Amino acid sequence: MKKYNFYSGPAILPKEVLEQASKSVVELDNIGMSLIEISHRSKEFVNILEEAKQHVRELLQLDSDQHVLFMQGGASLQFCMIPYNILNEHETASYLETGVWAKKAIKEARLFGNVEVIASSADTNFNYIPKKYLVPPTSKYFHITTNNTIYGSQMQSMPEVTIPLVADMSSDIFSRPVEGKKFDLIYAGAQKNMGTAGVTLVVVRDNLLGKVKRQIPTILDYRTHIKENSLLNTPCTFAIYVSMLTLRWIKKMGGLVAMEKINEEKAIKLYNEIDSNPLFTGVIAKQDRSRMNLTFTINKPELEESFNNAAKEAGCIGIKGHRLVGGFRASIYNAMPMEGIDVLIGVMREFAAKNG
Amino acid sequence: MKKYNFYSGPAILPKEVLEQASKSVVELDNIGMSLIEISHRSKEFVNILEEAKQHVRELLQLDSDQHVLFMQGGASLQFCMIPYNILNEHETASYLETGVWAKKAIKEARLFGNVEVIASSADTNFNYIPKKYLVPPTSKYFHITTNNTIYGSQMQSMPEVTIPLVADMSSDIFSRPVEGKKFDLIYAGAQKNMGTAGVTLVVVRDNLLGKVKRQIPTILDYRTHIKENSLLNTPCTFAIYVSMLTLRWIKKMGGLVAMEKINEEKAIKLYNEIDSNPLFTGVIAKQDRSRMNLTFTINKPELEESFNNAAKEAGCIGIKGHRLVGGFRASIYNAMPMEGIDVLIGVMREFAAKNG
Repeated sequence: MKKYNFYSGPAILPKEVLEQASKSVVELDNIGMSLIEISHRSKEFVNILEEAKQHVRELLQLDSDQHVLFMQGGASLQFCMIPYNILNEHETASYLETGVWAKKAIKEARLFGNVEVIASSADTNFNYIPKKYLVPPTSKYFHITTNNTIYGSQMQSMPEVTIPLVADMSSDIFSRPVEGKKFDLIYAGAQKNMGTAGVTLVVVRDNLLGKVKRQIPTILDYRTHIKENSLLNTPCTFAIYVSMLTLRWIKKMGGLVAMEKINEEKAIKLYNEIDSNPLFTGVIAKQDRSRMNLTFTINKPELEESFNNAAKEAGCIGIKGHRLVGGFRASIYNAMPMEGIDVLIGVMREFAAKNG
Repeated sequence: MKKYNFYSGPAILPKEVLEQASKSVVELDNIGMSLIEISHRSKEFVNILEEAKQHVRELLQLDSDQHVLFMQGGASLQFCMIPYNILNEHETASYLETGVWAKKAIKEARLFGNVEVIASSADTNFNYIPKKYLVPPTSKYFHITTNNTIYGSQMQSMPEVTIPLVADMSSDIFSRPVEGKKFDLIYAGAQKNMGTAGVTLVVVRDNLLGKVKRQIPTILDYRTHIKENSLLNTPCTFAIYVSMLTLRWIKKMGGLVAMEKINEEKAIKLYNEIDSNPLFTGVIAKQDRSRMNLTFTINKPELEESFNNAAKEAGCIGIKGHRLVGGFRASIYNAMPMEGIDVLIGVMREFAAKNG
């Protein structure tokens, strides 16, 4: 039976990316060696890295003073690297608290300087994105999370600020057009729309760096990674390759405008079912709903496990909600076909007919 | 033409590991989904992680108070994490300086406390391992690099010390039996004998931790990774899987005793050629020569490029020496077959006959 992968990350990837990556694990481009056993300094791998960088530059329309880095450690390492590199001890950074990942970013930043949480939706278990807030122009930077994977909320527009803008885009990067130029630092774990786990994309503007007084360990200093072109030490060559293939696929499919269109169609279809099916309720305020992670609860909580099983039996894997939210979460990243949405909707309707 | 991969890392892997990994990138164990798109918290992946841990425990014969962690960031991240976690500002750690990677470890440790370099072979471009040194019993820990990838030197026996012993085993772990119990912290990037790039093995003894006064960022704190069983955030699932397969292969081949035997046979054969061929000279003092990375120079430097090309034409890839040493380096990790050694020896003889 065909499986539909609704995991929140590592998550579904295009079939042709999987097939090409699989081939290259045995042999890369007829070179007589595997992708995963060649040196990260070989010309073959450096070409892969450069192609991946070029795709990022084009898709995000970056300025020439914005560096593209491929790092390890996930967004969680960025939570500490960002303040380590750009926040002095007596300075203040502003953070928007829209979920657990934002809270984690805030916690780490507090080890390095002052943090002002300028708005939070913690009071309602993060079921909306705060909009009325003032970012103090004296803040060192403003940190946002563009999509909140656990809760299923997403910023529909980017804030206009006069101070450096820093964004965790882990779960919605490359799912819609974004004006990359507007950001001074963007970071994203690859394992949703960009590839598989093992690499973290960082885009950082040159003039943000070199201004803190503390000494930064070499591997935590963005400047070293820039200087070494992401080859300070051995990167996860496989994950960078999968990102390159995925970005190539995105461009082939029509780029971010095309991605946004299909992502909207998929999300609207599934939200329509959530809203019209008497058995289910959406978790997030309508205007803030994510096109990537669609969260919903079942109105008869005693049927939760039973619905999860029905979905599994129909091939829909990974729809159990995060324990902090409960209910269900359908993660429908770029590579999820409309067919997967239709199958899930079918399960919801059939289940409601039986148990409504 | 068959290629023999002499790269220093990412490096050669067993063919059956590559083939199994390749299959799993399309579909893991008939689950209808790819290894690289399933959640790191899925039961399928947690089983992979647990099997990998178990292999490490058995192969290194660890005590129950030694934790096995799979992390990201390479050995270079460990250079800063180790002192961050176990060296207070006014304490001193002892380091043995046997190469560039040891120097890098020393540089990072100095950001966190005092470092005493108790012996160094820097004076002779690290062509031997210092042996006459005293480790001060008041030091917080003693740090060694068991194999120096760039220079081709290797510790033939482990030091006996009364203070915690910390070892970077990146380039020779799992190549020979090691009494894991003797170490308080072992770390190793996977991309030589253990798998591919993207995961770093850390083995840390419980009572080493929780003794520094500074606050440690969450992701740099070993205790968080222990508590979360290496799933604090999304690990590089693919690289952990490849490590699991490689460790499974090592056990199937007879474990570390068998690995040591074949590695010795391969190294002796190639060193014999280096020593008997009038055109080549070994770089490292005989008693300290590495069984993993065999370095040698050509006695007619004007023929260096020409020999490198002859090797390439015979299918021997990656034998160019590191720029800090020059000449040649044959990295012959566990998965290098004797056939590869024979082909390289053939090239050396033929080249000497023509140019000797």
